[in-house]
Amino acid sequence: MDNKKMALNKHYDWKGKIEVISRAEIKSREDLALAYTPGVAEPCRAIEKDPEKAYELTRKNNLVGVITNGTAVLGLGDIGPAAAMPVMEGKCVLFKTFADIDAFPICLKAKDTATVVQTIEQMADSFGGINLEDIAAPACFEIERQLKQKLDIPVFHDDQHGTAIVVAAGLINALKWVGKSFDQIKVVVNGAGSAGIAVAKHLLNFQVKHLILTDKKGILAKDTPDLNPEQLRMMETTNLEDLHGDLSKALEQADVFIGVSAPGILTPAMIQKMNADPIVFAMANPEPEIMPAIAKEAGVAVMGTGRSDFPNQINNVLAFPGIFKGALSVRASDINEEMKVAASHAIASLIQEDELAADFVIPDALDPRVALVVADAVKQAAIDSHVAKKTT
Amino acid sequence: MDNKKMALNKHYDWKGKIEVISRAEIKSREDLALAYTPGVAEPCRAIEKDPEKAYELTRKNNLVGVITNGTAVLGLGDIGPAAAMPVMEGKCVLFKTFADIDAFPICLKAKDTATVVQTIEQMADSFGGINLEDIAAPACFEIERQLKQKLDIPVFHDDQHGTAIVVAAGLINALKWVGKSFDQIKVVVNGAGSAGIAVAKHLLNFQVKHLILTDKKGILAKDTPDLNPEQLRMMETTNLEDLHGDLSKALEQADVFIGVSAPGILTPAMIQKMNADPIVFAMANPEPEIMPAIAKEAGVAVMGTGRSDFPNQINNVLAFPGIFKGALSVRASDINEEMKVAASHAIASLIQEDELAADFVIPDALDPRVALVVADAVKQAAIDSHVAKKTT
Repeated sequence: MDNKKMALNKHYDWKGKIEVISRAEIKSREDLALAYTPGVAEPCRAIEKDPEKAYELTRKNNLVGVITNGTAVLGLGDIGPAAAMPVMEGKCVLFKTFADIDAFPICLKAKDTATVVQTIEQMADSFGGINLEDIAAPACFEIERQLKQKLDIPVFHDDQHGTAIVVAAGLINALKWVGKSFDQIKVVVNGAGSAGIAVAKHLLNFQVKHLILTDKKGILAKDTPDLNPEQLRMMETTNLEDLHGDLSKALEQADVFIGVSAPGILTPAMIQKMNADPIVFAMANPEPEIMPAIAKEAGVAVMGTGRSDFPNQINNVLAFPGIFKGALSVRASDINEEMKVAASHAIASLIQEDELAADFVIPDALDPRVALVVADAVKQAAIDSHVAKKTT
Repeated sequence: MDNKKMALNKHYDWKGKIEVISRAEIKSREDLALAYTPGVAEPCRAIEKDPEKAYELTRKNNLVGVITNGTAVLGLGDIGPAAAMPVMEGKCVLFKTFADIDAFPICLKAKDTATVVQTIEQMADSFGGINLEDIAAPACFEIERQLKQKLDIPVFHDDQHGTAIVVAAGLINALKWVGKSFDQIKVVVNGAGSAGIAVAKHLLNFQVKHLILTDKKGILAKDTPDLNPEQLRMMETTNLEDLHGDLSKALEQADVFIGVSAPGILTPAMIQKMNADPIVFAMANPEPEIMPAIAKEAGVAVMGTGRSDFPNQINNVLAFPGIFKGALSVRASDINEEMKVAASHAIASLIQEDELAADFVIPDALDPRVALVVADAVKQAAIDSHVAKKTT
């Protein structure tokens, strides 16, 4: 049986990959009177008096809403809310498996920013945090921005920041391996959608000075036609030399290529224009921008992809479970830049100096230590940056 | 320790009464590739092609959203979404305990009908059914009506219909006990909010001819000032003799008093105006409209309350778990009158002829047989009334 068929059959067996269970045992009238009426009135009154008590008296302390509108699901595109659900359930499985976080999937019908924002705002009190998922760019930027402003719980669009955090983690170690530093390198990010823009922004946190965004149109510059508002905003911090041209032009004397674009876009000829010891993270799915064997042959020093069957898999699962675990543990009101930077360093730190190798700059996606180390680092960063409502 | 303190402490221990767990085990890269990328694309594609597959490939087959805006929580009133959560989690515990239904609580901020309806409509694809809870009248009527029209999954406001179904179940047996029939009796329902109106409507399904709604203003008649639209609508089917006066007047020659109102409202003098063998279901919480001992002394033949420490507890938990279980089992698009009537009969049927007694007209709230029997009856009624999308 092929893998596709096997995955489908497994889903028929599971009949849903999540389940909601009870933590309260109801075996007697007394149990019923404590968990439901009349006893349940007491925690209600306590929360009415002090809303923070919701973290102690309800599941808010450990509960993340995984919310999408199904407009940019995997490589499948805009498949709508119902068809997006298997992915959202899968995400919830990863939250529980890697960080013991309860996550619940909700798929919304609306495509417009205003309705998505309003709907999530309406239900936000039910959760300790919101993980936005698979919402198409550029709407995703504005949706996240508005929600972060309106809500006092963390909001995190994983397609953006999860990817960015893991890319930066890999880059910390890859740069160590080739003996370069963030402030000297030239980085080209190919793909200027949600992930590409988030990667570029996050690299600015690491003091990258030479950063170029490219997409199908080539190098993004201030006068590139039809930039969306988020891309326009990026023109203030990227391509400061105002370069024009195609990807090949962008890669001249570059040190790092980060692809969140399409299969086969990166050629050996382009790699040969890069500086010595080039680093390539080619994350297009299912086929990367260049296959690892070809990249290595063209002189790439460190190669990463999104795939589990090659070394250095750049997988969001290294980030989001620990990030939310850390944020929830101190009732963080936000997941801010400090917390994201801390997460990147924490992921990178799991590879010891003596383990570091061209084919091992990123921990294994299934490494059970990752979420805990990330959670600790994120928790501390939340406290240090004053977004933690609980500091003990 | 008193019960209130004990209930609060229990809630601190539970740290939330529900938990979201994974049904898919992730121990290897292969597991990850089946439950998440790339394998998860297959069930997504299958649902995109045929939305009905969502019932087989996601948790929609067994998942109910328990949704409130916290405007009418228990006896606490409008305490808002955060403070309502312990009750909603409790409800979810009951769904799981009694019917193995996964239920997830969502508390909304909005009080206005339009926003509540729009928000629930937005997320409806994520659930197999919607249990509305603790939404104040009269908004609850319009919210439910609009959602039933817009959605192709069952929508059920439990405060209305759960109560009505269990009251009717009790009445089926109580009437058997006193030897009267629905079409002959005069029923007074005191309290014209969500539960009272729903009880009155449901009794019409049982061919009750003489039905009077009363509230603080006394008997509700066509010319009663300030009736809300739902109460006005009820004037077409109740108080057909156009009686005017107070509760005492309403109870002259009545056979049944149903109270969903306030403690102590029903007096022995009023009961003495009723016909022989009066039936009293006094469901005000925590103190009923009349205490059972006093009612019995005044000549009441069958007495029920909402409390677990008296006989004949009228508890919604006898209805909603089995109703949703039955509806979900055949992917019902609605919970219609036929299904509600079937549920009442099913609950009543659990008391055998030789068990029937004045103090035993309603099964015990913890009787594990109830949900199964109700589910079977509701399933069959859904099929017979053509709202089942699956009939095998």
